[in-house]
Order: sequence, then structure tokens, then C-alpha cells
Amino acid sequence: MFPKNTWYVACTPDEIDVKPLGRTICNERIAFYRVAANEVAAVEDFCPHRGAPLSLGYVSEGKLVCGYHGLEMGCNGKTVAMPGQRVGGFPAIKSYPVQERYGFIWVWPGDAALADPALIPHMAWYDNPEWAYGGGLYHVKADYRLMVDNLMDLTHETYVHSTSIGQKEIDETPCKTVVEGDTVITSRYMENIMAPPFWKMALRANHLADDVPVDRWQICRFTPPSHVMIEVGVAHAGHGGYNAPKEHKVYSVVVDFITPETDTSMHYFWGMARQFNPQDKALTAQIREGQGKIFAEDLEMLERQQANLLTWPQRGLLKLNIDAGGVQSRRVIDRVIAAEREGAAPAAQTP
Amino acid sequence: MFPKNTWYVACTPDEIDVKPLGRTICNERIAFYRVAANEVAAVEDFCPHRGAPLSLGYVSEGKLVCGYHGLEMGCNGKTVAMPGQRVGGFPAIKSYPVQERYGFIWVWPGDAALADPALIPHMAWYDNPEWAYGGGLYHVKADYRLMVDNLMDLTHETYVHSTSIGQKEIDETPCKTVVEGDTVITSRYMENIMAPPFWKMALRANHLADDVPVDRWQICRFTPPSHVMIEVGVAHAGHGGYNAPKEHKVYSVVVDFITPETDTSMHYFWGMARQFNPQDKALTAQIREGQGKIFAEDLEMLERQQANLLTWPQRGLLKLNIDAGGVQSRRVIDRVIAAEREGAAPAAQTP
Amino acid sequence: MFPKNTWYVACTPDEIDVKPLGRTICNERIAFYRVAANEVAAVEDFCPHRGAPLSLGYVSEGKLVCGYHGLEMGCNGKTVAMPGQRVGGFPAIKSYPVQERYGFIWVWPGDAALADPALIPHMAWYDNPEWAYGGGLYHVKADYRLMVDNLMDLTHETYVHSTSIGQKEIDETPCKTVVEGDTVITSRYMENIMAPPFWKMALRANHLADDVPVDRWQICRFTPPSHVMIEVGVAHAGHGGYNAPKEHKVYSVVVDFITPETDTSMHYFWGMARQFNPQDKALTAQIREGQGKIFAEDLEMLERQQANLLTWPQRGLLKLNIDAGGVQSRRVIDRVIAAEREGAAPAAQTP
Repeated sequence: MFPKNTWYVACTPDEIDVKPLGRTICNERIAFYRVAANEVAAVEDFCPHRGAPLSLGYVSEGKLVCGYHGLEMGCNGKTVAMPGQRVGGFPAIKSYPVQERYGFIWVWPGDAALADPALIPHMAWYDNPEWAYGGGLYHVKADYRLMVDNLMDLTHETYVHSTSIGQKEIDETPCKTVVEGDTVITSRYMENIMAPPFWKMALRANHLADDVPVDRWQICRFTPPSHVMIEVGVAHAGHGGYNAPKEHKVYSVVVDFITPETDTSMHYFWGMARQFNPQDKALTAQIREGQGKIFAEDLEMLERQQANLLTWPQRGLLKLNIDAGGVQSRRVIDRVIAAEREGAAPAAQTP
Repeated sequence: MFPKNTWYVACTPDEIDVKPLGRTICNERIAFYRVAANEVAAVEDFCPHRGAPLSLGYVSEGKLVCGYHGLEMGCNGKTVAMPGQRVGGFPAIKSYPVQERYGFIWVWPGDAALADPALIPHMAWYDNPEWAYGGGLYHVKADYRLMVDNLMDLTHETYVHSTSIGQKEIDETPCKTVVEGDTVITSRYMENIMAPPFWKMALRANHLADDVPVDRWQICRFTPPSHVMIEVGVAHAGHGGYNAPKEHKVYSVVVDFITPETDTSMHYFWGMARQFNPQDKALTAQIREGQGKIFAEDLEMLERQQANLLTWPQRGLLKLNIDAGGVQSRRVIDRVIAAEREGAAPAAQTP
Repeated sequence: MFPKNTWYVACTPDEIDVKPLGRTICNERIAFYRVAANEVAAVEDFCPHRGAPLSLGYVSEGKLVCGYHGLEMGCNGKTVAMPGQRVGGFPAIKSYPVQERYGFIWVWPGDAALADPALIPHMAWYDNPEWAYGGGLYHVKADYRLMVDNLMDLTHETYVHSTSIGQKEIDETPCKTVVEGDTVITSRYMENIMAPPFWKMALRANHLADDVPVDRWQICRFTPPSHVMIEVGVAHAGHGGYNAPKEHKVYSVVVDFITPETDTSMHYFWGMARQFNPQDKALTAQIREGQGKIFAEDLEMLERQQANLLTWPQRGLLKLNIDAGGVQSRRVIDRVIAAEREGAAPAAQTP
């Protein structure tokens, strides 16, 4: 249950630097590779000769060469050449629209005719000296929508991430969910509280006192198919909170690209784009490591939640006010899937 | 194929000391936890909010708090509270009768209305200065009845445990099986033999010569659902064997609680209660370690026997005289299951 | 899909030196053991008493003793004895014709009445001072016919084994396939080329210059059920190639016995019999290690090819000229299976 006529993050450029990458996206087995410095490609991971995975091969002069018997595959899924063979009649394999943008390789697993690069959501922080970005990738054995639920209801931070970003005030402060077209926004503003450990670290890293009250915000934005961008930060209390001037706050965006692998597994690309102290690479590494540890705390919970849901498929789950973000996001997903089935044109994605 | 309206050993108290324990018993996924110093509880391992496993949470003031979003579950399966929520209408989950007794946590996986703590079999050796007890737990991927078979036919000791408790005389001495109500008793008495290594060690530990002939006994008692208590020991020959006075023998009871996990796996709680030198804690540890090694020898055999039986489900097994203990025990089990299906009241368990 | 009325290599003698071996061949679970210095036996790996695997037992005076309760099994699948039991009425288990020959244990998994040891193919290099042999065993999770394909089309060496025996000239030189009865022969002769690393090593090991042009040959011979013998070698150019006198060439036979385990897994016995410098045991070990590394390079390819074929069962594979060896070999296999189904007598195997 996922939209297919849409752009998903497939991998990061470093994953195809040295050799091709075999990865399943939306139940499609795909070989990703770099054709040239500025060009990437993606084809079915199946050599039309004998069914070997093309991702075990190598790239030569822009062709993906099968590592078994040397068939040379073109980006369009048509065989270009094979030693000693006439390849004109070889059956074509599926090729996938693919784009390198904002530090990611994006793939369109559905109908290629509908793929428009302009639909890839814009990432304002990319290649921008006022921002720094660091992130990583986790493989999670759970339906990708469980991660959407997770990120659209941050009350779980109080429990799952109690030693880093969790604090009782999250639980105690109501959140508000609004739907604007296909975008779902869940926001929570906490005033005059003490910052939890992660944000104390961030304050210090931005040369701000960490032992004074702060205002804290969390603004989660879901856009289809499954991107969740979360504006997060704290400002010294009394300076306007979210709208405080730069010198009184630490501000960043949690970046989540959630790519379905199968119906019950996902590739989770997580990261943080920050607006404070962007030149400090050691800080980027430190935040990346801390965030990696925090997000790893969710994995066992989600995988065992998934196992429970498979054991008890007939049980309905509650849809409380705190779940509104996830519930509304799933409605958008359902709508997009329904429209896709009816043949509607895919909508633009907004980050 | 297991009785459900009965008490099974679920875990030992130390397993729920620090945090809840998720364990499947008779195909039921259950979260066990300590409510208070003298109270334990067990509920389905499924949070009614979003299906997370409650066993990943923690206990606070007697409530099991879900580690995902803080739902507080009561021992009766009803939600007590959740931050910012009215929980009156939350669906209840199943709760299980559970008792702490004789150093174990016991659970009743079936109809709670029928659960009577008085049905838990009495363990005479518990908290008794004349006895010492040590034991452990093995997870075995085999039908629990294969372990019942194993323990009700000790001729396997000659082969599986040849270097510790096995000896040729077991094989050569006929055993006798009697059925008394729901209790099956298989006994074997060997006279004027040399003790095998384990019993030589036990004789020395009780300050008795280990190089003289002994009488040895094995009296296996099966009671439903799947408890097997085995009186074992040796006495210097000529002093009355099983009935010899204390100063001429070493006497103990092998304690086996065999709890089905699924149809083809079990939790095997094994131990030994001994009547000699009970104050010697180093001896308790030594026996526990030795018994642990001996019982581990059965695991590969049972797991591969199970695999064979799944491969050849149509093949009948032989029912020899030595198998009478297991065969009769399975008949009792079948009778108990049939009675359970007809709605009969559960019978008391006698150890 | 494999012939069963035929001889397969089951194991090497060292695998049953110390204790019995449990191994599945053509979906049959079999216990192999040594009855006496010159006699081996094979029976179903299932004790008729309680279904324990007999391969966990031990051999005593030629009988396979069950490690669970001491049942003594005879080579013919009939129980010989059991402590305290009359065994006349015990059900027999299947026994398998088995032969020790040419350094291997051979088994006939089908109709025992048809098993004729004379059908085992002759290995000229065995116990012959002019030859040396070294080999090993790999377990591969793929249909055994994928390995037949692999070995009957050596163009893959150019890609899979590019650093050892592969070279561009293999790809560029057409091969020729002929079928003679049930034997399929694919041959390729390359003239006046430079030897690849493995053959340079072999030339040096035979005290021949490795920096001069050579003629190279590959003559693959498939015989049913799934043996592939490959004559390989290089000779200094200008001396007659394959027919060059011994002092100008290095000549060996790649020995491949491919034994189906299940429909999608195999036991792959690989080795090399060489005619140069046969007394040099260090060289035998060196070649064995090198060949082991080379053949390991095929495993991931074959296992992932198998996974792809299971994912896309409806997709036809191409049958190019280079595939003729495998295609013809599969036709022979199909013919043998069809004949077996019609009750025809098994044909002799020629190596």
C-alpha cells in the first residue's frame, strides 16, 4: 500500500560511487548506478540473458555490464551489446526515472511516462552556506506508515527518547493538527521549560546558555508520499520563541525520507539540517552521531509493533488526538493511491 | 495441543526484577511484570493504543506503562490512564491469572474464571532448610511432549548422557510404569552397581565413599499438564536402597516444568532439589552447572527429532515398554484436553 | 527435477571418518557411515523407534547405533537389536546403495534394485602416480542446473574470475558444442595469447616460462546426472596446443560433481586433477586454495541468480550460442528424467 507514481529517495550518491547498488523499492528490485559524473540510472536488477542480478556487475563507459557474462545494459533497459552476440532481439527490462538532487538519488518506481523531475520537493538547505546537513540510513522491518505515525506524533519522545530529546512537557502540551491540501502539519509549542540534554548541547554549540528557561517548538510537516520534515528548536524564553531572532535560538529541521522496501519493510533516510554554526563540521558529526543513536531507539519498537500487528491483523488501533497527524497523513496517502488507480496525474510534492 | 486451563511456569522472579518480560506461552503473547513486592501480573503484550508490545515499557506505581506513548495499563487489562487522554472507552486487553509461588511465576493461559491458585502443585522442597534447589531455563524448538517422552524414559541417559549419569545398567534394568489417576509413574531400581560420574561426585559431596557398589533408583512422576518430577539417588549397597537411612545415601528430585511456547517449541525449566548437604551453596552451584551441561545434551536431539517428525508426519512411532511412561503421559494429556473442550472443571495438580 | 536412479557423490571419506554424517541428497535425508574399513552404508536419517536422526548416533561393530535410546540399525535398514527389546516387528527404513570409489562416497538415491556399481564413471586420475588431485566442497543455495550452466559456459570466467583465469580472449573466441549420446561437449581453443595469472603460476610450477605466448584450451564434458569434467591447460605457442608434448604444456582436468540437495540447493564437489608435477604436495595445496577462492566467486552470483528466478518465475531466459552447452545438458537431464519415469534402465555414466 504505497503510491508508486511519485519520487522516493533511493540512496545517497556515495552508495553508488564505487559499484552499482541493488535495492528493492516498493517491491521492485532495482539496480542503481552512475552513468557519468552528472548522470545516474536505474534498471530492473535482472539480466535478460540468464537472470543474474545486474547490480553485481560494474559500469563501463556508461553501460552497466553484467558481472556474469558481460551483457552491456543501457539506461533505458535495452541491451546495448554483448561479446559475440547480436542483441537486437533481446527482451528489454524495465528502466526507472531517476534523478540526483539535494544530495540524494531519487527514483520513480511507477509509470515512467508520468515522471516529472519538477515534482521533486525543493530542499532549501541544500548547498546553502547558512545551513549544515548530516544524516544516515536505517533499514527497518516495518510498514513505512508506522514511521510516518511515529514522526507525526512526537509524544513518543517522552518515552522512547527520555534521555535525549524527551521531556514530560511534550506529553503535557497539546498539539494541533491541520491539513492543507496534501500537507499535514502537527505543531506543538512549549513555553518556559528547561531544555532536555540534546538541546542543551545544541545551545552550548551555539554559544548560548543552557541553564535558563527556553521556549521549544516542534512543527511536523508530512507531504506525500512519505516525507516528514520537522522544524525543531529552542529559544531563550522571552525572545519570541519560534520567531526569536537568530542570536537567541537554535533552529533546525529534522529531515525524514521514508521509502517503502516491501509492504512490511522500509529504508529510512534520516538527517538534520541546522541553521546554527553551520561551518562547524565537528558539530555536524556530533549531531549526526547523537541523532543516529536517538533514531535507533525507535527501531525495536517499530519492528515489534509490526510483528504484533501481523499477529493480530483484525485488531483496530485507537485514533486519539495525538494520533491525528498520522491519521491525517494516512488519509492523504490513501487519497493519493486512489487517485493513482484512477489514472490521475501525480501532484507536486512540497517539502 | 496443550491444556490451557491449567497452571504453567512462566518465568522465574529474577526475569521480571528489572523490567517487564515478553514471553509467549501456549501461543499467547504475554507481558509479565511485578506490580508490587508481593504481586505479579500478566497481560496481553499488545498496547490497545497502537499495538506496541507493552513488555518494552516499564512499571510505575504498579501500572505497566507503554514505552511508546505512555499508556498506563492495569493488571486487569484495562487502561488506567494516558497523558492528556480520557481512557474510559479504550478497549480492554486480556489479562492472565498469575501467581508467584515456590520460586516461580505461574500463569493460567486459559479461561481466567476457572483459575484457582489452590491447583498449583505443592513443592515440598521450597523454602525448606532440609532441601537446596538450583535450576535453569532452556528454550527448545520442539513440541513439549517430546520432552515429556524424554524424561519419562531414562534409558536415553545411557546414550545421550554417557559421560555423566548414563550407564549400561539403566538399559539392562527393566522399568515399570503405573498410572494412578492423572499421575504416571515410571520407576527403575538398579542394585549393586558402580555409580556413574555425576553420582560419584554427589557421594563425595555428601562425604560418602564413591568407589563401592551402590543401589540406584529413578522414579519419574508425570502430572498434567507437563510437570515431571524424578526422584533420583544412590545408596551404598546393602542399606535398603531407596529406603536407606540418610547417612548412607544421596537423594534428590529432578524438577522439570515444561511450558509450551508454540506447537513446536517450549520453555524448559529444569532444576534439582536435593536433600544432602543443603547448606553448601558452592555445591548447589556445582550441581546446577553440571545438570545444565547434561540437559543441554538433549537439546540438539529433540530439535532434530522434531524436524524429522515434521518432515515425515505420516510415520507412526514405536511404543515399546520403555516408552510406556511417555505414552501414558500423552494419554493423560489427551484426556485433559478433551475434558477441557467439554467444559469440565480443571483437576488439581499433584507434584 | 533431478534423476534419482543414478550415482551421485554424497561426501568424501573423511566426512564419515569419526562419526556418521547426516546429509540431504535429492530431497532424501540420509545418514552415511562407515561399516568397516572397506564398507560404507547409507540409511534414512530416521530412527524407527522415535524418529531421532540416526546421524547423531555412532557406529559400533558395524551397526549404526541411535544416539537416543540405543537402537542398532543394520545397513539394510532393518533394526538389528535394541537393549531389552525384540526387534523383529520393527518397521524397516529405506537403505541406499552406496559405494566408495575414486576418493568419494557415491550414493544412489532412487530405486535400489537398479543400482549397478559398474555405472559409476571411471576416474582415470585416481590413485595414478602421473596425476595429483585436490578439491573441496561448497554448499550452494541454487538449483544444481545453474551450476551445470555455469560450467558449460566458461565465458563467465572473463567476468566472474577476471583476476585469475578470466581473460578477454575467452569472450572473443567462439566455442563449439557437440552432443554425443548423453555427453555434451563444449570446447574453445585460444591461440597465441598471454596466460592469465592462474596459468602463469601453473607454468612456473612446471618450470616453464610464463611470459611467452601460449595456446589455451577448455573442453567441458557434461555427463548425466550432473558431472562436468573440464580439460584445461596452456602450452607454449607453436608446439601443438592441446596436443603439445608434455614438456611444453600444463594440463589438468577440473572435476565437478554437482549433487542436488533440494530443488533449490546443491552440494558442489569441485577439484582439479593435474598431470604436471604430480608429486609436489605443496603445489596441490596451493592449487586447491586458489581454485577454492576462484569457485567461491561463483557462489553469490548463483545464489542471487536463483533468488531472481524465484522472484520472476514466468520470465524466459535467453539461449544464446554460448549457452548451448548448458541448454544441451539440460535436454539430456530432461531425457534421463523422462526415461526414468517410463521405467527405463539407467544408462552408464562416462566421465
